[in-house]
Amino acid sequence: PAERTAQHSASIWVEFTTLAAETKAVNLGQGFPDSPAPKFVTDLLENLSKHPELTAAHQYTRGYGHPMLVDILAKMYSHFYNVQVDPMNEVLVTVGAYLSLYYAFLGWVNKGDEVLIIEPAYDCYYPQVKFAGGVPVPVVMNLAEGATSASQFTIDFADMESKINEKTKMLVINNPHNPTGKLFSRHELEKLAEIAKKHNLIVIADEVYEFHVWDKNDMVRFASLPGMYERTISIGSAGKAFSVTGWKLGWAVGPKQLLEPLKAIHQNCVFTCSTPTQMAIAEAFRLDWPKFLSDPENSYLATGLSGELRAKRDKLAKMLEEGNFRPIIPDAGYFMLADYVHLKEGINLPTEEDPDDFVFSRWLCREKKLAVIPPSAFYSARDNKLKNSNMVRLCYFKKDETLDAAEEILKKLG
Amino acid sequence: PAERTAQHSASIWVEFTTLAAETKAVNLGQGFPDSPAPKFVTDLLENLSKHPELTAAHQYTRGYGHPMLVDILAKMYSHFYNVQVDPMNEVLVTVGAYLSLYYAFLGWVNKGDEVLIIEPAYDCYYPQVKFAGGVPVPVVMNLAEGATSASQFTIDFADMESKINEKTKMLVINNPHNPTGKLFSRHELEKLAEIAKKHNLIVIADEVYEFHVWDKNDMVRFASLPGMYERTISIGSAGKAFSVTGWKLGWAVGPKQLLEPLKAIHQNCVFTCSTPTQMAIAEAFRLDWPKFLSDPENSYLATGLSGELRAKRDKLAKMLEEGNFRPIIPDAGYFMLADYVHLKEGINLPTEEDPDDFVFSRWLCREKKLAVIPPSAFYSARDNKLKNSNMVRLCYFKKDETLDAAEEILKKLG
Ligand SMILES: CSCCC(=O)C(=O)O
Ligand SMILES: CSCCC(=O)C(=O)O
Repeated sequence: PAERTAQHSASIWVEFTTLAAETKAVNLGQGFPDSPAPKFVTDLLENLSKHPELTAAHQYTRGYGHPMLVDILAKMYSHFYNVQVDPMNEVLVTVGAYLSLYYAFLGWVNKGDEVLIIEPAYDCYYPQVKFAGGVPVPVVMNLAEGATSASQFTIDFADMESKINEKTKMLVINNPHNPTGKLFSRHELEKLAEIAKKHNLIVIADEVYEFHVWDKNDMVRFASLPGMYERTISIGSAGKAFSVTGWKLGWAVGPKQLLEPLKAIHQNCVFTCSTPTQMAIAEAFRLDWPKFLSDPENSYLATGLSGELRAKRDKLAKMLEEGNFRPIIPDAGYFMLADYVHLKEGINLPTEEDPDDFVFSRWLCREKKLAVIPPSAFYSARDNKLKNSNMVRLCYFKKDETLDAAEEILKKLG
Repeated sequence: PAERTAQHSASIWVEFTTLAAETKAVNLGQGFPDSPAPKFVTDLLENLSKHPELTAAHQYTRGYGHPMLVDILAKMYSHFYNVQVDPMNEVLVTVGAYLSLYYAFLGWVNKGDEVLIIEPAYDCYYPQVKFAGGVPVPVVMNLAEGATSASQFTIDFADMESKINEKTKMLVINNPHNPTGKLFSRHELEKLAEIAKKHNLIVIADEVYEFHVWDKNDMVRFASLPGMYERTISIGSAGKAFSVTGWKLGWAVGPKQLLEPLKAIHQNCVFTCSTPTQMAIAEAFRLDWPKFLSDPENSYLATGLSGELRAKRDKLAKMLEEGNFRPIIPDAGYFMLADYVHLKEGINLPTEEDPDDFVFSRWLCREKKLAVIPPSAFYSARDNKLKNSNMVRLCYFKKDETLDAAEEILKKLG
């Protein structure tokens, strides 16, 4: 095999999703809703195929994105970023946010270039940067002892700056943040913007959970900060926005000159994304966007999604407390971290006295039939007790039956 | 931008598809059907979304391929290759054949490794090999003077062997072949197999047009040759098989150890493919495969597709002859080459006396409103008169209205 693929073992998703399926565990692991996707969205996929004249819906469309989809995305992000986003040059539709990220690294990282990654970090950043020949440089967030809120995760900006040198090319920001559920404040983002400007960094703003905030006004998109649009590649996800993760559609938005190299990769390696799902998602945005702006109570993206999520967050937090976990309450997104340290004594763990989160999570899945994700999967170095290796990550975007089944398991642990 | 993306201008598809749209030309360029996709296939996508309980159809599925899809694919290829293909380890579902190809290069090519490419060759091979750090090494097929059949494209095997050295790692075979429409004979494939074995090469068998042959028994799949399964990564396409190019689903089939590095890339860079289209394609194969085996007259893949294609091929060939082109009659696939050399004198070309195929194709699209593809886009060196630079490539998988409109244009040229 090529050197680049040596030492890549099964990702956390392959391991824990397989384990959850094999053990038939209640699955609060991987981040996807297990309740039906919004009917107005799935209906759109159905309606497309009902039009027999819509021959084009099943054939290749424009390589960089279906015209209808890039149009509505440009309109939305023009509003959010307060710049004129050009649909034909400043939006690239990709197979999920995954490929926008990978293209960004492939398009901008040369051998040995360094990429700052705020840890914990979504696990695919590291291998993607390495596949592109780059060097991921972690900047670990601090979490106050006994913290109960995701906002207590903080960046040490001096530490970040000390890691910047002439090789540093990029900074990846994930906001709202996975796995912590932290929503970065305007102040924090301004500090990051300052650093990006001072050191001439390109910023990858992975904002796939941008609509998963309790109040849509709380979300400060990085590219909306003064002077930031021109150095930012913003990444979004239709699968996350409309709760259809299986459709695997995402996008990168940014100035033409920043997107050019991403397009060079895309046109030769993928060429175009699925037409029917692009058309359905374009229609979904066209239906919801006017409401988002002027009738938020009836907008899925403004309130429908987040209302549902917030109730589920509160339910899970309560369950965890009953189960003697210490939840770190998230500001946004799908996920919650929870400390299991008070639990350890009561549990009859098979081998280790002080199980780290991988040992604990495997045990929880195999023995107690509850699937979660060990958060140290989101750190480049696993063997550091400061790195939440006494926690689990749980996804709360699950139907009530699933959460209730999890509650039964948690109760018996507590 | 990263060095790897320097010098990548718009691909042939971006240029000519954009030009065809702008000029509103009759489009025989890019390879996709413009007649409705088979209703039994598009209905399956519709029916999936009709089941409200089918929540899972809209969420992430197994990363390496939906269990239903890898199952039926393994069954089919077990039959074709006469080996036991393991659905869980020897099939990888990807976003189109494009990504199977790219993963294969990324997974097996190190910096400086050489990849043999039989020319003309589908244009994405070159940049993909280069993105992976490899060196594409073209082996140009010969075409007899005045040839009228795609089978007259021949490989000089001695020439091929003379280009092999210790850096040579891979051989890419595209069969049925794009852009020529050649179907390689068993004898030719055996010669290639011999070379692969002798020099320990991995073979990428790009067989996306495997069902586009006039008689299904004429298709010799490379991995079915003795000893070849273990060194071959076979690549197929649902978009091509079921005439839904816009669904962008493909796959790689091969022994576990050959696919492992492709999976390492996939799990971190894409993770999973679209669930609804995978489910619909799995169903489509499950419906058609039993008929393919024992009721071919009612099988789309055995006779439905190829019967339609063959009639269209004959129609286009006749039209081209009437228009004073010399068609090179294809054995298989979507495409036909045709020499326009007898035409030149009669045409009032704007600038050049002896226009090459790019000049001619642009002129044909802009001035005569007929979009075709210049075949020298499929060669690494454009400036060689032996390289079919006096031809055009036409796609004949178009509805009768489109072919009739093209006929009108061709008649006026002839
Ligand atoms: C690879 S599964 C993606 C789901 C997700 O984003 C997560 O669980 O963190
Ligand atoms: C990039 S479009 C793909 C169509 C095709 O295979 C072709 O026209 O050769």
